[in-house]
Amino acid sequence: MIQETFTRDVRYPLGHGAGSDAIHRDPVYSYAVTLLKDDSGLTGTGFAFTLGEGNDLVCKAADFYAAQLKGRDIEAVMANFGSIFHRLSNEQQFRWLGPHKGVVHLALAAVTNACYDLWAKKRGLPLWKLLIELSPEQIVNTLDLSYLEDELTPEQAIALITANRDLSREAITKTGYPGYDTSIGWFNYPDEQIRENAKKAVAAGFTAMKLKVGSSDPERDIRRANLVREVTGEDVKIMLDANQQWTLPQALDICGRLQQMQPYWIEEPTHPDDVIAHQQLAKAIAPTKLALGEHVPNRIIFKNYLQAACAHFIQVDAVRVGGVSEFITVSLLSRKYGVPVVPHVGDMGQLHQHLVLFNHISLGHEALFLEHIPHLQEHFVHPVQIKEGVYLTPQEPGSSCDLKHIV
Amino acid sequence: MIQETFTRDVRYPLGHGAGSDAIHRDPVYSYAVTLLKDDSGLTGTGFAFTLGEGNDLVCKAADFYAAQLKGRDIEAVMANFGSIFHRLSNEQQFRWLGPHKGVVHLALAAVTNACYDLWAKKRGLPLWKLLIELSPEQIVNTLDLSYLEDELTPEQAIALITANRDLSREAITKTGYPGYDTSIGWFNYPDEQIRENAKKAVAAGFTAMKLKVGSSDPERDIRRANLVREVTGEDVKIMLDANQQWTLPQALDICGRLQQMQPYWIEEPTHPDDVIAHQQLAKAIAPTKLALGEHVPNRIIFKNYLQAACAHFIQVDAVRVGGVSEFITVSLLSRKYGVPVVPHVGDMGQLHQHLVLFNHISLGHEALFLEHIPHLQEHFVHPVQIKEGVYLTPQEPGSSCDLKHIV
Repeated sequence: MIQETFTRDVRYPLGHGAGSDAIHRDPVYSYAVTLLKDDSGLTGTGFAFTLGEGNDLVCKAADFYAAQLKGRDIEAVMANFGSIFHRLSNEQQFRWLGPHKGVVHLALAAVTNACYDLWAKKRGLPLWKLLIELSPEQIVNTLDLSYLEDELTPEQAIALITANRDLSREAITKTGYPGYDTSIGWFNYPDEQIRENAKKAVAAGFTAMKLKVGSSDPERDIRRANLVREVTGEDVKIMLDANQQWTLPQALDICGRLQQMQPYWIEEPTHPDDVIAHQQLAKAIAPTKLALGEHVPNRIIFKNYLQAACAHFIQVDAVRVGGVSEFITVSLLSRKYGVPVVPHVGDMGQLHQHLVLFNHISLGHEALFLEHIPHLQEHFVHPVQIKEGVYLTPQEPGSSCDLKHIV
Repeated sequence: MIQETFTRDVRYPLGHGAGSDAIHRDPVYSYAVTLLKDDSGLTGTGFAFTLGEGNDLVCKAADFYAAQLKGRDIEAVMANFGSIFHRLSNEQQFRWLGPHKGVVHLALAAVTNACYDLWAKKRGLPLWKLLIELSPEQIVNTLDLSYLEDELTPEQAIALITANRDLSREAITKTGYPGYDTSIGWFNYPDEQIRENAKKAVAAGFTAMKLKVGSSDPERDIRRANLVREVTGEDVKIMLDANQQWTLPQALDICGRLQQMQPYWIEEPTHPDDVIAHQQLAKAIAPTKLALGEHVPNRIIFKNYLQAACAHFIQVDAVRVGGVSEFITVSLLSRKYGVPVVPHVGDMGQLHQHLVLFNHISLGHEALFLEHIPHLQEHFVHPVQIKEGVYLTPQEPGSSCDLKHIV
């Protein structure tokens, strides 16, 4: 039984341009942490990611949701988590502050993720293992499919999982899930540092890496993109990330000029709410592909992006949408559309290393690669382990989200 | 010069089912109030509207924005408010919590509205009068048109105002702006009360009124809609408001069956983020019209709704989007598309009575009617005055948003 609930406002200043992009020049990587203390002695840890300012607001909103779980048994909660998620996310007064977006939805992510963590710890299983052992019906019971009735009913979701689930794919947990390196090309890094980082990443075994673009000077973007391509050769996948910095007319121009270095994708070209701008851009620059989702708050907007056929990689983040539950919902929708899920990792990959294994084994998503951001590793009790460019499969019970000194 | 800034968390419990709709069963009408104390002795008052829980979060976020205006002269601030709005709404760490939506954007509304209020008070003018006296260039300087470059550049905005502005329309301030009554048909009211309220509204001179629908029992919705039509006769405009309660398949079914009582519009049929669902619904039930915007947080999503041709009435609310500035931006976009603006009035019409006059006189929007919700009148220093169904034009300096006992 969940006896007590706490939230913790945890902030980790970075330094030297790390984490910088075209819009976020000086972030403080922060977690709004929810702790669910069970009478078994176990603690469920979940969090949402922010860039510092306002992390306290997310904590305060998470308090409101977490308090409603006091006295509940985690197995009972998770047996029907979809309806609990639905109730919490539609709590009638709080709902006005979204609905299903912004501070309140980030807070729900923290609470949801703490529930999944506690659930796995009580079963003594790493989260990925718990999730792949669930039946299609059990999975769908953890999801809120409301406002998706036109695309994905519970019956359709069960059928989709049933058709795609293949436990023989668990073999991937022996070899590890491929990673890619986000940290070679932060926005504030000078050209020379990017060149060195790209070389190091290739030497470390990465076959995919990301460069931040979205400069006020498009020539800078194009120069740096070509520079990375020059260092890596043709076989490495290079992703370009504009972090919403372009207007649609700018994106149409610059993306056209970036096509020649063959980016694997162009990420967040413009505002994350602007489905129609993405649709126009995707048409104009086909077959160059777009990736987005880092700032998309919920399953409904993801549905629109998929319907509009302009998101070629879905970067849903379980510490931005309403936690693991909505992450799985979005992954199901993406599977229906045949679109890969490549999460943004506000959690530094700790939680998502579990979720991509589930997506691959139970939903049949391709095991493409998972973003890797090393900046907060020393703060986790069980930091992700990357060897030769692959994530080694976590074996400890839970979702790998426990933070040092946070109790 | 703005010497000090404060926020106030003000909540007004309602009673007896007032304010209830299909989703919000028991709201507490609340304002997150920003006060800007000027060294002239004047105080600018602005607020965002919430339903109670979390109003404190909006206040806390507003503190963050308001503090950045300390020491500034309000005339200087407003001379270039568009760039200040742009900077505040993209503050790099806070932006993560949106962007441009949820708690942080509501907070920005409160601060923005306090700026406009202080501006008008310092000029000794009611806000509508100040706004209509601005030149097209001055208006556009108060707006942030970023992410609208594909639809509305500053030059296009100036041209649009220049082509539509007609100060002879100020005549409407003598006769008053038409109102409509939202309070006849709250969701929890029994049939008999709705019948009586509709009769009273007709007797009071209203020629338009609204009924809440979105019941779990569609027969209840249809019965009550027909009942109001029966009481009012054919000439009264009846708006039906589902408050997002329907799934798309339900909306397609029920809206089809509601067409026969000839609703003037059907409001918020489903989730406010679901542009494509609204597009499909609008096509299916044409020529029946849809109204939406109460929960749409920013100009970018409004742009998508207009581009998708599925919002026939734009219900932008200046205490939901980023305040008066973004309200005007959305009104300009709507004007470009020839779509009427009929604001949702989280402010109970206090602020919007000024803005609809501006929209009519300076932007050439039709003077259709403005929602009227009487529930908080006793709390305002200068409550709206309605006579025979029209809003009498406010004459006091400012935006009519001062609340009693809030200093």
